[in-house]
Formats: sequence, C-alpha cells, structure tokens
Amino acid sequence: MTDLTPNSSFSLTLRLEIPNRIGMLASVTQAIATTGGNLGQIDLIEQTRAVSIRDLTVDAASTEHAEAIVQAVKALPNIKLLNVYDRTFNLHRGGKISITSRISLKSVSDLAMAYTPGVGRICTAIAQDPEEVYKLTIKQNTVAIVTDGSAVLGLGNLGPGAALPVMEGKAMLFKEFAGINAFPICLATQDTDEIVRTVKNIAPVFGGVNLEDIAAPRCFEIEERLRRELDIPVFHDDQHGTAIVTLAALINSLKLVHKSMEQIRIVINGAGAAGIAIARLLQKAGADKIWMCDSKGILSTSRTDLTQEKREFAVKAQGTLAGAMQAADVFIGVSGPGVLTPEMVRSMAKDPIVFAMANPIPEIQPELVSNEVAVMATGRSDYPNQINNVLAFPGVFRGALDCRAQTITTSMYLEAASAIASLVKPSDLDREHIIPSVFDERVATTVAAAVQRAARQDGIARS
Amino acid sequence: MTDLTPNSSFSLTLRLEIPNRIGMLASVTQAIATTGGNLGQIDLIEQTRAVSIRDLTVDAASTEHAEAIVQAVKALPNIKLLNVYDRTFNLHRGGKISITSRISLKSVSDLAMAYTPGVGRICTAIAQDPEEVYKLTIKQNTVAIVTDGSAVLGLGNLGPGAALPVMEGKAMLFKEFAGINAFPICLATQDTDEIVRTVKNIAPVFGGVNLEDIAAPRCFEIEERLRRELDIPVFHDDQHGTAIVTLAALINSLKLVHKSMEQIRIVINGAGAAGIAIARLLQKAGADKIWMCDSKGILSTSRTDLTQEKREFAVKAQGTLAGAMQAADVFIGVSGPGVLTPEMVRSMAKDPIVFAMANPIPEIQPELVSNEVAVMATGRSDYPNQINNVLAFPGVFRGALDCRAQTITTSMYLEAASAIASLVKPSDLDREHIIPSVFDERVATTVAAAVQRAARQDGIARS
Repeated sequence: MTDLTPNSSFSLTLRLEIPNRIGMLASVTQAIATTGGNLGQIDLIEQTRAVSIRDLTVDAASTEHAEAIVQAVKALPNIKLLNVYDRTFNLHRGGKISITSRISLKSVSDLAMAYTPGVGRICTAIAQDPEEVYKLTIKQNTVAIVTDGSAVLGLGNLGPGAALPVMEGKAMLFKEFAGINAFPICLATQDTDEIVRTVKNIAPVFGGVNLEDIAAPRCFEIEERLRRELDIPVFHDDQHGTAIVTLAALINSLKLVHKSMEQIRIVINGAGAAGIAIARLLQKAGADKIWMCDSKGILSTSRTDLTQEKREFAVKAQGTLAGAMQAADVFIGVSGPGVLTPEMVRSMAKDPIVFAMANPIPEIQPELVSNEVAVMATGRSDYPNQINNVLAFPGVFRGALDCRAQTITTSMYLEAASAIASLVKPSDLDREHIIPSVFDERVATTVAAAVQRAARQDGIARS
Repeated sequence: MTDLTPNSSFSLTLRLEIPNRIGMLASVTQAIATTGGNLGQIDLIEQTRAVSIRDLTVDAASTEHAEAIVQAVKALPNIKLLNVYDRTFNLHRGGKISITSRISLKSVSDLAMAYTPGVGRICTAIAQDPEEVYKLTIKQNTVAIVTDGSAVLGLGNLGPGAALPVMEGKAMLFKEFAGINAFPICLATQDTDEIVRTVKNIAPVFGGVNLEDIAAPRCFEIEERLRRELDIPVFHDDQHGTAIVTLAALINSLKLVHKSMEQIRIVINGAGAAGIAIARLLQKAGADKIWMCDSKGILSTSRTDLTQEKREFAVKAQGTLAGAMQAADVFIGVSGPGVLTPEMVRSMAKDPIVFAMANPIPEIQPELVSNEVAVMATGRSDYPNQINNVLAFPGVFRGALDCRAQTITTSMYLEAASAIASLVKPSDLDREHIIPSVFDERVATTVAAAVQRAARQDGIARS
C-alpha cells in the first residue's frame, strides 16, 4: 500500500523546534521529501533569537508511511519534534455535524412563540391538517441517512458505531451540496424485518430516506419494502447514486473513444448493491452486453450459487475475471483493492475504459496503467475523474423534496445521469475530465431540475 | 379563554398604510388598546408625503381575540390594512432547527479527510475500540428526543407529525441552554414493545434519550425497560424534569410561608406521568402527606380502578378534588385547563401555594386568585414563577453526558432540584420570584455540576 500517492486522509501536522541556522529548515523538508511525504502548509508559530517553532503539514500515503516520515524527522540532529498531530483524527473529534436553532431564543416572547404555549397552535394546525407538517416543521427538508453498518465503505461489517463517521460525513455533504438537513440513523440490528419496521417507525420526521452501507442482498429487500410501504422517497445511495454517476461518466467516456452504449461489452466486477444497480441502470440506458463477476468469477448461467439479483445478469460465458476482461471495452469495479492486474487491462479491447471504484483502495492503482487506458476513473477524491456519489444524491434529493415526489423512479435516475454528463462541455471533455468536479456549483441544481422534470413526467410530484 | 392575558403565542404583525395626518396613528393604537390587544414594536417600513406604511406588532390572548383586533383595525376609516402576519406560524415555517456541518468542505483535501478515503481510518479505529465512538463522533453530545405523539403538551393524542413542532422546540432548548445536539424522533407507533425496540435500534448514535409527551401509563414501562436495556441515560422529561423543577419551586415557596416539607399536605391533581413522578420525588424529599386526584377524584384505597402507579399513592380519604383541597397547603396541578375554581383555592389552609402547571392553559387563571394565594406558579412563560422543565433537562443531560453517566438516579434528581432552588438568593426570594429565570445563565451549569457530583457519588460516572 505504500505505493499509493500521498493524500490528505493521512495528513499530519508536525510541530518542530528548529534552530535559526542556515540549512536547518531545509534539512527537515529534505528528510520529508526523501521519505516520500508530500509537504503542504508551513506555519510559523513562535520565534526567538535562537529557535523557530513551525507547524509542517505533510500528507502521507498510509499509516506506516506517516510513521516513517515521523521517524525520519526525529532522526535529524538539532531538530526537536514537539508534537505530531493527525489532522484526520483531529477533525473528527466531537463529531462533524451540529444541530442548531434557526431562531434566536433570547426572550420570554421568543420562548412563548417557539415553545409553549405558542407551539400548541402549530401542533393543533398539523393535527387538523396533516399536510401542514410539510410547511411548519423540518420534514420538508430533512432526510434520514440509515445504515446497519454491515457494509461500511469497502471495509465490511463494522457495525453501527463504526459506521457513524461515514454517516456524519454524508450529512455534511447533504447540507453543503444541497442545503438539506440529514441525520444519521445507525441501527443496532442487521435483521431485514427489524430494519424495515424501525425505519417506518421513525419516518414521520423525515421527507426522505437515504439508505447507506447496507450489505447485499439484504439491501435490495429493505429498499423494495420501504419504497412500497412509505410515502416518501427512499434511495439506496450505494446502488442508485453510484449507478447514476457511473452512467454519467460512461456517457462521456464513450464520446472520447467514439463507441456507443449498444456496441460495447462491459465487465462489472462486484455483484453487490452497487454492481447490480449499475448493471440495471446501464441496461436501461441501452447497454446490452454486460458480464458481471463476483469473487467466484463470471455470473454464468451454469452456476448454481447465484442469488435472485445475480441470476438477473447471468450470461452463457463462464470463467474468471481475467477471462472476462479479454477484449472487454469497459471495466467497472465496485469490488475490492488490487483485484485488477495490469495484465488484465492490457488484454482489453482498444481504448480501454477503466472505472476502478473500490473505496478507499481501488481495484488497480491508476499509476500502474496510466499510459495504457483511454480513460481511468476511481472513487477517490485525490485522483482525476472521481466517480463520487456526491454528484448525484444531493441533487436527487433536492429535486425529490422540492416537488414532494412520493418515490424515486428509474427515469429520475436516467435524467440525473444525463444532467451530470451534460455539465462537461464538449470542448472541456478530456480523458482526465469526464465528469464535473464535486465542487462545480451547477451540479446539484442541474440534477435537481432534471429530477423534478422526470418526477412531473412520471406523475409522482405532489407540489 | 378571552380572559387570558395577551401573549406572544398569539402575536400578529399588522402592516398598515396610514395617512400622514394628525391623529391617524393614534386612532389605530387606540382601537388596538380598546380591543384589549397588547401593542409592541412599531416599525416604519416606507414613507411618502401622503402616507406611511408601518408594521405594528400586537399580542392577543387567543385566536378569536386576534381576529377581533384585526376587525377593529379594518373598521377604521382612512386606514388600509395591507397584510396580517401571524408571527408564531411564520416563525415555524420550514421548521425551527437545522443540521449543520462543523467543518468546512471547500476543497478536495477537506473531502479526503472528512469523507472518503480518510473517514475509513476513523471507522476502523472505532471498530477496533468501540469506546472511541464517544471521542470521534457526535454521540458524546447528542440526545434523541423521542415521542409517540400520544400526550402532546396538554393537547392530547395528536400523533407523531403534530408532535414534531414541540420536539423541534425542545431541540432548540437543548442547544440554547446546554450546547447539546438533540434530534426529534417522532414515532409512527404507540405500541410499548415497538417503541422500546425502535429506540434500542436507533440508540447507537445517541449519548442519551429524552422521552417526551408519551401518555401514561405506557410511559412508565417504556422508561423502565429502556433504562434497563440501554447503557446510556434515559430521562422522561414530562416526569422527572417536571418533578425536579416542581420540587425546586416548592423548596423555595415553603421558605416564604415558613412551613416544612414534613408538615404540609399536598394535593396533586393529575395522575399521569408528571403527577406520579412529582409525587414520587416529593416523597423522596420528605413530603409524606400527598393526596393525588385524577379525573374521578381522590386516589383512594377504596377505588378499584387504579393502575399500579396510582395505587402507589392511594390514601384512605375519598371524594372529589374540591374535597381534597379543603385545608390543603399546596396544590400542584398537572391536569387540564380551568379545573381549579377560586372557591377551592379559598378553602385551602393559610398561605396557600398553587402551582397551576397545565399547558398551555393552566388549571386556574392566576388573575382570578392573585390576592388570595401566598405563591402562584404556572407552566407558562408569560407569568411570573414559570415552572419550566427547561430549568432542569439541559443541565441534567449536560451533567450526565459530561461524566458519561450510564443512567440517571433519584439522587441526581434531588441534587438538581436543590441546585435550582439555591440559585434564588434569600434576599431575592419573593412570591413572584421563587425560581430562577430560564434565561439565568447559571442554571444549566449549576445543575450539571450537581448532577455530575451525584453521579460520582452513586458510582455511575464512566469518565
């Protein structure tokens, strides 16, 4: 893993006491560079005639690499390491979100309006007309982020507590990119019935439900049942968010290599929630040659171990991922770290498109095949072409909440994908720029508008 | 109800176009005064040579009263009513709380630390040591406000949607008075087992559970079971918050009338959650002559219709509330509007203490007996001596979260009550000032310190 590029997820701040003599600071920066650390900000904290205290921010590639950098600095004569500070851990202390009051509560009169007795009038109004809850409470703009902690990122079944940092991060993204209030619901159960029942029980506060990091195949049934039994939009982001952004990226990649959706053969590695949803959406978008692989190889009609969802995509071909990759046009990985070899990429058809989206470590390190692919995309924010769900879910929910869609439909997914793809102008389209940046401010509003349009066409908008 | 004092819960803003002639504005203010409206802020919005546009804020006593004021202004010649704006409804539009990000998300490096891939390190750390969830997530400072909507304020079983404005208000109070993140959980079930199961399922995100507006006797079992089955503090505010503040108010009232807890006979009207909890806590504080009444009269050992909790307080006496009130020293009402008559108050012992805490309309309008009682308190923010749970629950949870108490004990309640009472200095103690103001900034910290002390003495603090 030390061949990873240094990035901010392993970011340290080293506080150093450095003698004010020529070459001293240079000895530090050189030690860091030699160890492969990526030096960022240098802040002067304090200075006397004899010494300077400075904070150096350094990105490493892994925990071991970070430790190696620290050791290299420690080994320098005359330099005193005062403190090492892990920026990622520090940023998480105390949690990443906050619940705040939209109204000041500074006087008896404020209290009398916002709380008792005034609030009683609002309760009565909602009791008399339940639709008023959408106007007079947070419901209209609040989403539950629901997980059972069974498939946290690519890390596996870590449980609800360990999933919470991801859900808090998601809540930040909902607010930052779409102005939506989102709250983490991390469940102490991994039983399908129990999850469905719990989410239904807490639904009154929410205008929508975003399912997150729930393992397949349970996630399919949970989503299906909640969609049927709730009258608010339910969206499993690992499925549909990933599928929408993948489709958007593929639409633009195909423009670069001048191939059409109908022509290409796609290999999807990973037949979990994301893989199945991507396959389903690509099919709706016109792709008809999709070979899916799981850890046992190609989902073949000859196999007897396939779940219902996997059977949906079983093909006559059989064999390993390596076999499937021969002459394939597109690889889409939603599996695990390092499962794609450079040899497999070299066996693909001309102008290979590789989306290695496993998180946090991709199926193949982009550096290994950068000259051999037409397009490379990953799920990481520290490489070009990040296939990041944040391009989809904020706008999808913004659109669905704004028109009070009672559910989310496939045409909403397809429209969202087209909207995202359309934001890369033909003149800007490039192998390192197939999708807009997550910081492109047009994304959420463009997606929201497309989703609303589709909802109205489908007749499911309620306002 | 029109004999209520005008207050901010029925607050209007009237936008008027008023000719710039002598006596015109005066005609408006006089019309409002004559109709009994309470005129507040007057803002000049626009002025031409001929007319002024002004916003007049007026408090009314009820919806009907507000309508009468509007009609009186409309009837004035030359005055044009441009708009009437209900301040309470307006303040509730879109909800009263917001979920915000504590960290800015403006760059790829921010994303890589707060979300993937960096967040994966935090998840792994918590999976390896589950206690880390208290340091690295919102759990340590986050409380669930849980209701089933079955006993919303004094308004009854309005259901979860109509309860939400109260829970949002409560969340505002948690943040404003104790810096705690609190989130409303309004349940679509009123089944005890289902409520217990749902709260247990969502518990991983929360450092504490505040039960709210759940009807008796269900609330007792729910609290009892959750206390037993969860390792975080569970507090039913309608019970214990009310009991703590009532005890604090009673401690100070008794000082004024020179009676002791052991001497007095207390009538508690209302044998729901609050009534039972008040009776239990007053007993622990030394009161041994408590007569409780429900809608059928005194809880008498001769009655056969009593629940388990009511039987706990059954006495030999029998009869109506009016009978119970004769020669009683203290009336504590946690029942409904207008059930206490001036005659009943006049039949009490010397220096009667009346806590008429029904919300939003008290058991007796204070104006009706203001000269006949030694101390009058209500649950309303627009009268003196507001017995408001906000004096207790923020500090109780602040204290419990700060020392990671695994539960909340009776000695924590008693210490919290003493702490609140102690904040009124002997020299400030007065019939209209028996408890501190909710805006007294010392309250939450003083209560939190007392609660922590008690938790440590009880051996239930975990940090």
